[in-house]
Amino acid sequence: MLAVTPDGSTLITDGRFTVQARQQCPGVKVELQKGALFPALGEWLRQHRIRRAGFDPGQWTVVQLKAAKKAAGMKCRTEEAGGIVERLRMKKDPRELSLMRKAAILAGEVMEKAIQVLRPGVRESEVAAEIEYHMKRLGASGPSFETIVASGKRAALPHARPTSKPLRKNELVVLDLGAILGHYCSDMTRTVYLGRAPRRIREWYHAVNEARAAAVAMVSPGVTGGEVDAAARDVLKKNGLDQYFVHSTGHGVGLEVHEDPRVARGQAIRLEAGNVITIEPGIYVEDVGGIRIEDDVAVRFSGSELLTRVTRDFIEL
Amino acid sequence: MLAVTPDGSTLITDGRFTVQARQQCPGVKVELQKGALFPALGEWLRQHRIRRAGFDPGQWTVVQLKAAKKAAGMKCRTEEAGGIVERLRMKKDPRELSLMRKAAILAGEVMEKAIQVLRPGVRESEVAAEIEYHMKRLGASGPSFETIVASGKRAALPHARPTSKPLRKNELVVLDLGAILGHYCSDMTRTVYLGRAPRRIREWYHAVNEARAAAVAMVSPGVTGGEVDAAARDVLKKNGLDQYFVHSTGHGVGLEVHEDPRVARGQAIRLEAGNVITIEPGIYVEDVGGIRIEDDVAVRFSGSELLTRVTRDFIEL
Repeated sequence: MLAVTPDGSTLITDGRFTVQARQQCPGVKVELQKGALFPALGEWLRQHRIRRAGFDPGQWTVVQLKAAKKAAGMKCRTEEAGGIVERLRMKKDPRELSLMRKAAILAGEVMEKAIQVLRPGVRESEVAAEIEYHMKRLGASGPSFETIVASGKRAALPHARPTSKPLRKNELVVLDLGAILGHYCSDMTRTVYLGRAPRRIREWYHAVNEARAAAVAMVSPGVTGGEVDAAARDVLKKNGLDQYFVHSTGHGVGLEVHEDPRVARGQAIRLEAGNVITIEPGIYVEDVGGIRIEDDVAVRFSGSELLTRVTRDFIEL
Repeated sequence: MLAVTPDGSTLITDGRFTVQARQQCPGVKVELQKGALFPALGEWLRQHRIRRAGFDPGQWTVVQLKAAKKAAGMKCRTEEAGGIVERLRMKKDPRELSLMRKAAILAGEVMEKAIQVLRPGVRESEVAAEIEYHMKRLGASGPSFETIVASGKRAALPHARPTSKPLRKNELVVLDLGAILGHYCSDMTRTVYLGRAPRRIREWYHAVNEARAAAVAMVSPGVTGGEVDAAARDVLKKNGLDQYFVHSTGHGVGLEVHEDPRVARGQAIRLEAGNVITIEPGIYVEDVGGIRIEDDVAVRFSGSELLTRVTRDFIEL
């Protein structure tokens, strides 16, 4: 728990983390908690005679707020102060952008290796294991979320976990992966076909890819998340596929894999240089499969930069 | 979000999960949310004229409670109803125990493979990558927490993340890993020495192992978590090492890697047959290193069963 006051910051933590905290948080006071964390924070507020303390109501549970308030006593007023950290995180500085570019390139390298191991008979879970293994071999501290490998009808589940199902000929395979490098997340998706795809699948793929390109082309400072979302949605509508696009076009990404700004219907917040967002339109057809293509995109002073560098051409294996 | 009423359960979820929900939740109504989850729940409470709704204050954030209350309207009273799920989870039935035994045995197999790859020059992060790769190859859906590989002075950090630091001769290496199998978690730790250990390290190891054995011997229905914790702590005290034991002796494990019952100082709740707990005493000496030995233990009608099956003898490589 970090307590920020006008004269500095204090990290309250327990005995398991004090050595690590001193190593990783130079310039921050480290206070050893006795007992549970939230009562310890309340006690710290009381001892330091803090009269007004803001907390993040989107992070604290109802129980945690109660415990902190009880220990802080009546003289300390707690106030909701949400979104402060999220707003700071939205805008990446050049050092952060450089790390995110590396994290996106690393994910792309892993994607290319993963596509090479796809063949009928290999299990979804084996492909996921290869992906996370190569990620770490290439220097990532780990996946930024549980890797998705969804084949055949399972590709119709946007958030499918890999199962022991073997890949088969004439199936779509959705690969959605991200790596954490230097604490920053990447997030990308490619969809490939095992075999020679029927015309309908090829047409769907091109519609999704066109939707992706239209959304990326829209990214620029001053444009709203809603406008970027609409750009993708309009292309799918034109192709009669909008009813299969069941999620939003994208989200911010950074220290966490889901951050602000959201790229979704009606989002009125304007993009700013330094935002990094995903663009990931997809369609999901029950009992057939799904197609999603996702890139990480940085908002720059003029236009945008595609951080993800892997072909978006339709791949038939 | 699961809403439980006297006449059945309703899962409220969004378009990304409706296909998956119907597959994975037979017998549960699936309701498609429009907009965000907590307002959708509130709306559902209002439409179904629910007058009294219990929620989990340890899971809901302050913002989530507000959103649900606002949408539910004045006629619905929300009440804190914490711990219900946690209490159900504490006691494992025979099917759950069987899965947890398999998850613990799988983790042990991975540990044995990991110990084989340890040698000077191999990086902590490479060992972690091997561990998580083998886990998945053996059928685990993934690690139940971020694998810990901490060598040399870094072994003094109880929750160290693996780094690019290479292992060196004459170092302690702490390996803490767990696998998820059939949704159930395992959690185990072994500590090995690269080279021939000095007498002091060997004595410390035997003290920690004796503390572990004393705690395991104490596990039985009717005994409190505090008594099990004290059994380990007393052995370390007798050896003059209790000031280096900076965490509790263990915790429940199951669908989540940290569950009730807690095995910690002063815990007065009595163990019951069907509980599964970790026993994991450890010592951490700044600038020297650390030693931890951890097993999963099931509480049985008479005594206990060690689910983890890997030697606890001191290994010098």
